[in-house]
This record gives sequence, structure tokens and C-alpha cells, in this order.
Amino acid sequence: MRAIVKTKPSAGVEFVEHYPEPEIDVDQVLVEVGATSICGTDAHLYAWDASAQAFDPQLPFVMGHECAGTVVRIGANVRSLAVGDRVAAESHIFCGACYMCRIGNAHNCYNLKLLGVTRPGAFANYVALPASVCFPLPPTLPFDIGALFEPSGNAVHAVQRAGNLDGCSVLITGAGPIGLVLIQLAFAMGASSVVALEPNPFRRGLAAKYGARALDPAKADLDAIVRADYARHGGFDVGFEVSAAPGTHEQILRAVRREAIVVCIGLPNRAISLDISEFIAKKMIVLKGVFGRRIWETWEILLALVEAKRLDLAGMITHHLSIREFEHGIALLKSDSAKVIISPN
Amino acid sequence: MRAIVKTKPSAGVEFVEHYPEPEIDVDQVLVEVGATSICGTDAHLYAWDASAQAFDPQLPFVMGHECAGTVVRIGANVRSLAVGDRVAAESHIFCGACYMCRIGNAHNCYNLKLLGVTRPGAFANYVALPASVCFPLPPTLPFDIGALFEPSGNAVHAVQRAGNLDGCSVLITGAGPIGLVLIQLAFAMGASSVVALEPNPFRRGLAAKYGARALDPAKADLDAIVRADYARHGGFDVGFEVSAAPGTHEQILRAVRREAIVVCIGLPNRAISLDISEFIAKKMIVLKGVFGRRIWETWEILLALVEAKRLDLAGMITHHLSIREFEHGIALLKSDSAKVIISPN
Amino acid sequence: MRAIVKTKPSAGVEFVEHYPEPEIDVDQVLVEVGATSICGTDAHLYAWDASAQAFDPQLPFVMGHECAGTVVRIGANVRSLAVGDRVAAESHIFCGACYMCRIGNAHNCYNLKLLGVTRPGAFANYVALPASVCFPLPPTLPFDIGALFEPSGNAVHAVQRAGNLDGCSVLITGAGPIGLVLIQLAFAMGASSVVALEPNPFRRGLAAKYGARALDPAKADLDAIVRADYARHGGFDVGFEVSAAPGTHEQILRAVRREAIVVCIGLPNRAISLDISEFIAKKMIVLKGVFGRRIWETWEILLALVEAKRLDLAGMITHHLSIREFEHGIALLKSDSAKVIISPN
Amino acid sequence: MRAIVKTKPSAGVEFVEHYPEPEIDVDQVLVEVGATSICGTDAHLYAWDASAQAFDPQLPFVMGHECAGTVVRIGANVRSLAVGDRVAAESHIFCGACYMCRIGNAHNCYNLKLLGVTRPGAFANYVALPASVCFPLPPTLPFDIGALFEPSGNAVHAVQRAGNLDGCSVLITGAGPIGLVLIQLAFAMGASSVVALEPNPFRRGLAAKYGARALDPAKADLDAIVRADYARHGGFDVGFEVSAAPGTHEQILRAVRREAIVVCIGLPNRAISLDISEFIAKKMIVLKGVFGRRIWETWEILLALVEAKRLDLAGMITHHLSIREFEHGIALLKSDSAKVIISPN
Repeated sequence: MRAIVKTKPSAGVEFVEHYPEPEIDVDQVLVEVGATSICGTDAHLYAWDASAQAFDPQLPFVMGHECAGTVVRIGANVRSLAVGDRVAAESHIFCGACYMCRIGNAHNCYNLKLLGVTRPGAFANYVALPASVCFPLPPTLPFDIGALFEPSGNAVHAVQRAGNLDGCSVLITGAGPIGLVLIQLAFAMGASSVVALEPNPFRRGLAAKYGARALDPAKADLDAIVRADYARHGGFDVGFEVSAAPGTHEQILRAVRREAIVVCIGLPNRAISLDISEFIAKKMIVLKGVFGRRIWETWEILLALVEAKRLDLAGMITHHLSIREFEHGIALLKSDSAKVIISPN
Repeated sequence: MRAIVKTKPSAGVEFVEHYPEPEIDVDQVLVEVGATSICGTDAHLYAWDASAQAFDPQLPFVMGHECAGTVVRIGANVRSLAVGDRVAAESHIFCGACYMCRIGNAHNCYNLKLLGVTRPGAFANYVALPASVCFPLPPTLPFDIGALFEPSGNAVHAVQRAGNLDGCSVLITGAGPIGLVLIQLAFAMGASSVVALEPNPFRRGLAAKYGARALDPAKADLDAIVRADYARHGGFDVGFEVSAAPGTHEQILRAVRREAIVVCIGLPNRAISLDISEFIAKKMIVLKGVFGRRIWETWEILLALVEAKRLDLAGMITHHLSIREFEHGIALLKSDSAKVIISPN
Repeated sequence: MRAIVKTKPSAGVEFVEHYPEPEIDVDQVLVEVGATSICGTDAHLYAWDASAQAFDPQLPFVMGHECAGTVVRIGANVRSLAVGDRVAAESHIFCGACYMCRIGNAHNCYNLKLLGVTRPGAFANYVALPASVCFPLPPTLPFDIGALFEPSGNAVHAVQRAGNLDGCSVLITGAGPIGLVLIQLAFAMGASSVVALEPNPFRRGLAAKYGARALDPAKADLDAIVRADYARHGGFDVGFEVSAAPGTHEQILRAVRREAIVVCIGLPNRAISLDISEFIAKKMIVLKGVFGRRIWETWEILLALVEAKRLDLAGMITHHLSIREFEHGIALLKSDSAKVIISPN
Repeated sequence: MRAIVKTKPSAGVEFVEHYPEPEIDVDQVLVEVGATSICGTDAHLYAWDASAQAFDPQLPFVMGHECAGTVVRIGANVRSLAVGDRVAAESHIFCGACYMCRIGNAHNCYNLKLLGVTRPGAFANYVALPASVCFPLPPTLPFDIGALFEPSGNAVHAVQRAGNLDGCSVLITGAGPIGLVLIQLAFAMGASSVVALEPNPFRRGLAAKYGARALDPAKADLDAIVRADYARHGGFDVGFEVSAAPGTHEQILRAVRREAIVVCIGLPNRAISLDISEFIAKKMIVLKGVFGRRIWETWEILLALVEAKRLDLAGMITHHLSIREFEHGIALLKSDSAKVIISPN
């Protein structure tokens, strides 16, 4: 089969035309990949930077963790799926036995394997998946939309962490793919207004299309915006830190009101200096992060919103590439794009 | 001043052309009424039925509790308002000192007075209001919209009680004014679908306009609908019982899924027989009610949604009448109407 | 093996000396029963009354659902357990695939089987259990305490439903086994006072030993108690309805304060007539029930409290009987007893 | 009257024998101080260090914010209190009109004045208090216990922020007065175990008396403790950062399990460097702070626990001094003490 394989501990990947198909064990299914999409983590793995190495992947491995496809073979113990089922993959492969799994936090399993990072992935014609991480898709849902469930689910989980956006003003730092889904979700789930900070004008355009006031962080005077439009509440009601760009945590903690919730989605590759006294103790901001998706609460909410056409995932797709064009896809992440779909063919 | 006065312990009201203007005490303000609207409770008071008498109103009194207007005089101790301020009235007049008030539940004060029921009301040119129940309105918000904040706030409070509608299917029994605002709110706050049961075809039309699947309860086969469209979840995710019509509680408890939340807004005038074992214990449905509005969390959410144009209150107004036409307004409640606005002039 | 078998659709059971040992399938384990305890449901099954028949058990079957023991054989697919492990059984045998299981509510699975009711049970030398319902016990925890985890977990789940008892006054109707654990839990989890209504003087004695003010419901004037001791709050902060005796639901709804939480644990065998307007809507009481135990959050909380000696389960055991004395155990439930332990030997 | 007055922008205070009694306005009451206690903030004000100056107090002013006493005069508008009432003071003097006050967060009012810091305080014979911040005390509750409600309420608020301690293992960094109350509260509210890190052996002794495992942070190997005793959960379930000593935030974030809650009570006087990726995003720890007390939910919980004798505040008092000995009291804070009571006489 064709596959994108990380072979060396340095920048780059290999496109392999004849890579061995994965075997499945009794609890797994073999999925013929219908569509995949590229995540920022893939760019880190491609570049083999510090945040990629932090996951401690074992070379060589097939990359790719955002995917949907068709079950073509099932292990002997699998009862929940049948050949022909269409599924998307939860990339957090959980053990089901540790304390986190036992109390309902399988997304944060103590023995977590990450698809396409610490386990063979989906930039290939076939991927082996534990039946336990397969999410059945409705018959009419296209695979490229299904592939976006994993990253979009991250945004849904972020909103679940925020708790309730009813009537809230929302500040989002970063309007890449996650930020753009967050903008849509915020409005779908009750927000009254969204300000998004994003340096890329193309992405600002998409953010504006989804209803946000999209601003260039290099030029925006957030203090002035708060004074002009959010003074009565004392700042934004909720913040989502997505970009992890320098200074954004401090920026968002200043711009939200007292007793706000700030959800951290971006993964800064350095320690962040925080004034705990001012922001956490006195201002009583609640700081929360998000990792993966609640299994399956997050997925069910996402499916319901997509089926009800309350969320536009198709509009998030800016490029369709073949697997041979993978490296071009990686390059696109840094330019005028939102989600890049990779077809295994 | 002109006023609608309940004078006798029997059906009817009096329109009085020259009723004495109310006096205000040191903590109160005098409000020149800009607009009022008629509530179902007003119809009960008009009819002087059992549910009206249950409030134990002291005759005679000016009716009317949904209102907005302009502050024209302030008491000596009032610091939060000034002459000229535009306000809507919270009709739950709380003491501020009882245990409910102390722990943040002023809407359910142990010494509650109800505007226009157990305290002189607002179907008049002027109404005296404690400053503590005045909600400032933005300069451009029309008074007839402001008058609708009180009943609409009831619907917002119902959604607050439900907790979170993200991705949920919602069943609403009754599409009168509260039900119609609930339909709008459900979609604004994340619901994926709404089924509304309503016998009146005019109101079903409004419900459909706001996106609900509106059905005649006399003809709808709710079991079949659940089997066809909500089988995977095992029923609706959330229910709002609004109409209090015979059989609706049982109907809604059957149609929602296990572990659902059912919010009771309608006030049945008789005891309801419930299978606690089946619905509350085994099915683990949470039963909650709603009384008034959280002061001021509910109002702030409502204001934010109205200012963001996420809620269409203007479309809820089907009739504008003068105060002289009040009895016609009462009659309209039982026919093709949603909200009836009464102008004091 | 020895077993207590329900063989006929009428009152009574059979003690069988040579009953066939259960077979296990690939996902199951065989457990040598160390201890079991008798539940009120067993008395219903024994009597074969309406509430027993409502479960639709298929005759003949081995009864018993509160048990702990040692794993003596494991199915081919079982990886989470090993021979020699000591376990207690969750009696709610869930499918793992339905919507309830998928969103974290396996205790309320749409395909639930109940151990000892709709599946062969544990009043026997051996019981076959899916590995998924086995809760590992610490090495030093006696089996008779382990057998009490299932019923005690019901009480823990009830407190989880109440949410938070910090500083609360608590009213409990019924001080049988569940009520007695609830009394202990209430104090362990922050309650300031507990009033328990219980007709049996022996049980009142136990309730008092655990710190409750234990009253005979036939003599107690609850209104007077509320006026004397709970007037400032307007009633009890939280209520647990355990006995399902006639009138207790109304009694508890009257005695709690506005905005209280009432958890229904008892299973009345008849419809209960409720004043929804007064209690649910106006008083805004939240009505919740409890079914089973959250898997495994409830069990983990219980284990932590037992290991920390914050809960006295040993003191709940009033009788130790052999399996031959089972029918005497059933009789004891209606007399001066709390929990009756049945040894399979 | 006698008073402790901060007169100069440098270390020290003045004991003034004849200081003018405060005047009251129409919404205030004059309270004859029965007892006060010294807080760490008083030591900062005494030393006039950076964290004291951060509050921007206006010199000269009477210090003291933990107090209880008797109402001896009431303003013209005060209806909630009468001469002779015994009260404790909430030190967060709120406006009642800002957005925080309106949505139920008066403790974090945008126009907050702090008693004894930015408003004349209670180390004196009399203090003027807005009626809105007076908490009525039961007749038999001694004033020195009443004075401890303000600091103890901080600990109750911290537990409210943690949400639920049922069955939890708890780590507390610092066993000064707040930490010691937290230890008691943790056990009263469901915790299964408490580890407290505290350098002072005297305070470790008190911590141990209240049931905690009290360790010297200079010698304790927290990693080894987690491995030995908390490995199954992956760390402590809940953390309370109280001391704000160097390194404690990192220490507590490492020692708690995934998805834990960490409440920050200590006020570090420097920025804290945090690994957001590791702790907030991936480990999904929720970081919350605490400021003041919820008005009056926190106070009501505290009162209920004190009246039920579930909390030992008397045991927290290690010294009783007269107001003339105030500077000795300040010195005691750094030595073998818990709470130091100052009598105005």
C-alpha cells in the first residue's frame, strides 16, 4: 500500500509506494482509508522539532491521525463493528483499564497511544484500529468531513470545558482550523459575539465569514476594544487560547473579565510566566486545558451539530491533495489554508 | 392616570380613567410606563379562577407585571437609577434579607411580592417599583421589546435549568409565547432539533417559522416519532413541559431518553400522577421547575442575546392594543396570537 | 454446587445442593463466591410480587446480586483480571455499545441485565461474571464487606446525585440498609445534621448510633421540627426518599426548603400524585432518582471512604447466615436487622 | 477610642489611645468590636512591602479586617439590623451595582473596598460597617470565633471552588491558619486523606492533630509518596496551594493526578512559570483561585459546620492579646502560632 512514513530522526518524510499493509489483532479492525487531513502535529513530526520528539515516537512509523474510512476486516473479538461500516477514528487509543479510563476520562488514559505518532497512522491506504476507537459515521457523511471530526472534536471539547457560552462574549487567539471551528461552535452554542486574533489575512477572512470580528494581533488594541465594547462586563466572558503565540496567555488573561473561564488549547513549547496572584487568585479566572475529545460525548455532540447543519465543516476544507502531494500539504499549513485533505489515492 | 383595576372577586376588570398615581417610598422609583404585555396569569386574574385566587391578591389592585418604561421620579435612597433611565421590571419583588435572597435565589424570596398580583401593577400610566427590581435598558431598545423581557426571561431561566442544550434534541409541549421563545433559545443555544406540540395552527406556524417541527398533539404519534428519528439516543435529550395540558407530563417523561432533563414551566392546576419508580428512579430523569428569572444572570443573558440579534422578540408581538382595549387583549390570548402589547395611552 | 434457585412463578425459593456450575464465555470470569448479602429486591423475588415480575425474570434462575469472591477461571479474552483476584460484582451488566454506555451512563444501559434477576446470580458457590463488571478489592478487605459495596454504592450514587452536602441539613425517609449508609455518608460528606424517619425501633437505634436524629414517622411532627430547627433555611436543605412508604414523597417535598434537591431511591409500586405547580415549579425543588452505581466513579469513592475508615460497613451487618438458612434471612429483612450476610458454605 | 493606625509609608504601626470614633452614614452601622484576629495581610501592611503597597491604601488608616462585635448604632436606612445584634464582618465591601455584583459575584466587586486596607478597619474599639457586609452571629457564638469567620470562610470558599472532595486524596502546601482550616474542612467534607507540607514543626503538630499527614517540605520526597500511596489514581485528586512558597505551584501540579483540580489560595509576589502544555493542556488540570468568600453562601456553610461542631475554630486560636500588644502579635505570625486574637481592650 501507499504510505507516508517517518523514517529518520530529522526533517522530512518518505512517500512509500509499497509499504506492508498492517495486520490486525483480535480486538482490531482494518480500515480502508477514505480521507485524511493534516494537523499541526504532523508539521511538527515532519520538522522533527522538540515538540514532536516530546511524544517519543518510535521510528519508522506511518504518520496520520485524522481519518475516516471503511471497515474491510474485523478481528475475532470485535462485535461492535461489521465489514462495510463507515467510521472515523478517535486518535487517542486508550487502555480501558487504568484509573482515568475507569472514571470516564479515557481521552486522558495513563497508557495512551496516539495514532500516527506512537502507533502506526492513517496517511496510507489502510490503517489498523482498535474497534474501541472507531466512531460509526452515517451513510451519507463524506469521508473528508469524517476525517475532520477528530480536530473539530477538539474544539467541541474546548467548548465543553468552557461549560456554557449562553450570551457570552468570546475571545479567541488564533483562527487556524481549531479556531475557525471554535468560532462556528461559539455562535452555534449561544455566544453573543466573538473576537478572533489572527495574523494571517486569509484566515481572518474565514473567521469573518463565520461571524467573528477578526483582527490582526499586531495591530489590534485589545484594551481599547474591551473599553469600547466590553466595559460593562469588565472584559470578555470567555477566552480560548489557541495559537500559543508569544504573549497570548497574558493577553487573554488581561482581556477577560473577573471570574471568566480561559481554555488553553494551544501547546506552547516553553514555560509561560503567569501572575497567579492577579489573574488566578484575585481575578478568579478559571484556567482549563483540553486534550483529545471526551469518548464519546464529544463525538456525539459534534455529529448532532453536523447532521443538523449547524456547523459547516465542508467550508473548512481549502485544499484536496493526493497522498503523493503530502509535502506540499505540509507547506500549505503555513500559508493561506484551513484544512488540507489528503486522499490515499 | 389610566389603569386596569381588578376590583371584584369575580370575572372581569375595570378600566379606570382617573386612578390615583402611585406614591413611592425612599427605596422606590416612579416609572412612566412605555409598554406592557399580557401574560396568561392576567387571564387567570381576569377570570378570577382557582389559580388566580391561589396568589391571594388583595382587592382592589392595578394588574400588569410585564412592563418597561422611563424613570420619572426617584426615592431619597435610590442611587442606582436616575430620572430619565429606561428600565424593564422584574416582577418578583424580593426582600433581600431572607435565606433565599442571601444565598443568591432572590427570584424565590420567602417574602416575595408579585407585581400586578400581590402589589400594584403596570397596566397604567405609572407604576411604583423598588429600584432593586429595575433592569436598565439600552437607549435604542424599544419599550415593547423591553416589556417582553420578563416573560422571555422565564424561557431563558428554563434553559439555564436544563443546563446545556449543545447538540441536543428538544421536545416542547406548548408553543404559546414561552414555548415560542424557548424554540428560538434552544436553537440559539446549541440544540440540534426541536419538536413542539401545539394545538393552535397559528402558533404552530410561528413555531415552524422559528425552526421547530410543530405538531398537533391530537394527531402526533410521539412514540412513532421517537422510533423514527430519536431511536439511537432512546428519546429526546431534553424536554420542556410548557402547556400543563392533561397528560403532557406523562407524555414528555415517556418521550425523553434515560438520564434526560425535563423542565416544568407550565403550572397545572391539579396534582399530576407520576410513576416515580419508572421515570425518576430507573430512567433517572431529572425533574426541575422554573419560577421567575435569576436576578440578574437571566436578564443579562437575555439582553446579550437580544442585542446580538440572536433572538427575535419583535416577531413574537402579534397585536398592539391601547389600554382601553385590554379586555380584547385577554380574549386574544385564546385565539391566534403570541404576545399582545398594551400601550398605556 | 449449592445454590438458591427461583424455580416457580410463586412465593418461595429452592435450596439446591447439586446445581450445575456456570460456564463462562470468552469475556467472562468464574468467581468463587466468598460472601453475599440479601437485598430488598430478593424479598420481592422471593414473594414473586408485582415489582419482582416487573423485571420479567426467566425461570429458573439463581438469585443473588450483592457478592464478592475470588476469580478462579478467566475467559480467553479477559486481560484485566487474573486467577486469584478478589472482586466485588457490579450487578448492572451493561452492553458497552448502546448510547447510554457510549456517553458514560453504563449503569443505565439500554440492554441492561441484572445479576440474580435477569441473569444467573450469586447465592451459590460460583457465579459467572463478565470481566467488565468486576471491581477489584484490596487484599485485606473481607468478602462480607465487599458484598456490601453494591448496596452501599447505591447510597453513594444517591449522594453524587444530590451534588454537595456541605453544611446541609438532610432529611431521610427510611433507615433500612440504604438509609443507614446514607446517614453515614451524609456526615462523612459535609452534612451538618440528619433527621431520619424510620418506624422500626431497632433501625432507629442504628440510625442514632450513626448520628442521626431518628424519629418514628407515626409520631414525628415534621412541620413542628422544621419550624423549631430549620426555619431560617425554610426547611431541610436536601432530602432522600428511601422508604417509598405511602405519603413520604409529599412529606419530603413539604419539609425541604425552596430550591432543595430531593433524591428518590425508594421504588414505589404505585403512581405518586405530585403538586408540580407548588413543589417543582414554584418551590423549584429538583427531583432526581438513582439507579445502580456510576461505573466506576461511585465504586472508587466508596472504596476510598471504606479504606480511610470514614464509613463503617461492618457495623451494618447484623446477621451472618449460611446459604441453607436463606429463607430465614428473607424473614429477617422485615424484623430487627440491617444487612444479612449469606455464606455459600 | 483605642486603635492600631498605619500612619507612615514604612514599616510599623502606631497604637493610638484616643483616636476619633468613626461616623456612620445612612446605610451603615457602628459596631463595638468584640474581637479581632491578625491576618498575614496585616503583617504585609505592617512591613509595608510590595504586596501591601499593591492594595494602594491611603494613609493614615485603622488596620484590621477580621472582626466580630455588637451593633451599637444604626444608620437611618438600615432595616436588616438592630442595636444589640451580634455580627461578624465580611471584609469585602461591595458596591451592589457593578456587573460582578449583579451576577452574584459580589465578593469580586469591581468597586471593592477592603476593610482595614482601603477602608478604616477594626483594630479599634469601634468600626463603621455597611449593613450589607454584616453577618449575624448566633447569641452563643463567642466573638473570638466570630472574628475567625472571615479567614475560615476563605478556606470554605477554596473547598467550594474545588467542587467536591468526596473520597478524594488532598495535598495542601502550607499549614498556617488557612491550611489548618482546610485540613479540617477536607475531612468534614468527604476527603479520604490529606498530606500537608509545612516547614514549621508547631504547625505540623496542629496539622497532624486535625488528621493530616504533615511533612516538612525540605525533607519530604513527594514523588516517592505519590508512588507509594497514590499511584493507582496517578497522584493526589485535589491540591490546595496555600503557602505560595518558591516552587510549590510546580510541585503541586506534578503531584496531582490527571484531570485534578488545583486551587490557588496563596498570593505569590512574583510571576510563576508554568508548563501550560504539560499541566493545563495535556494533564487537563483545572487551575482555580479564590478571593474572599461567596456572600453569603460561604458564610452559611461555615456557620452550619461550626454550629454542628464539625469544625474546631477554637483550637485554631493559639494566642489572646490585648490591642496594646499588637506588634507582638505580628511577630507571633512568624513563630509557633495559628490564629492570634486581639481584644480591643
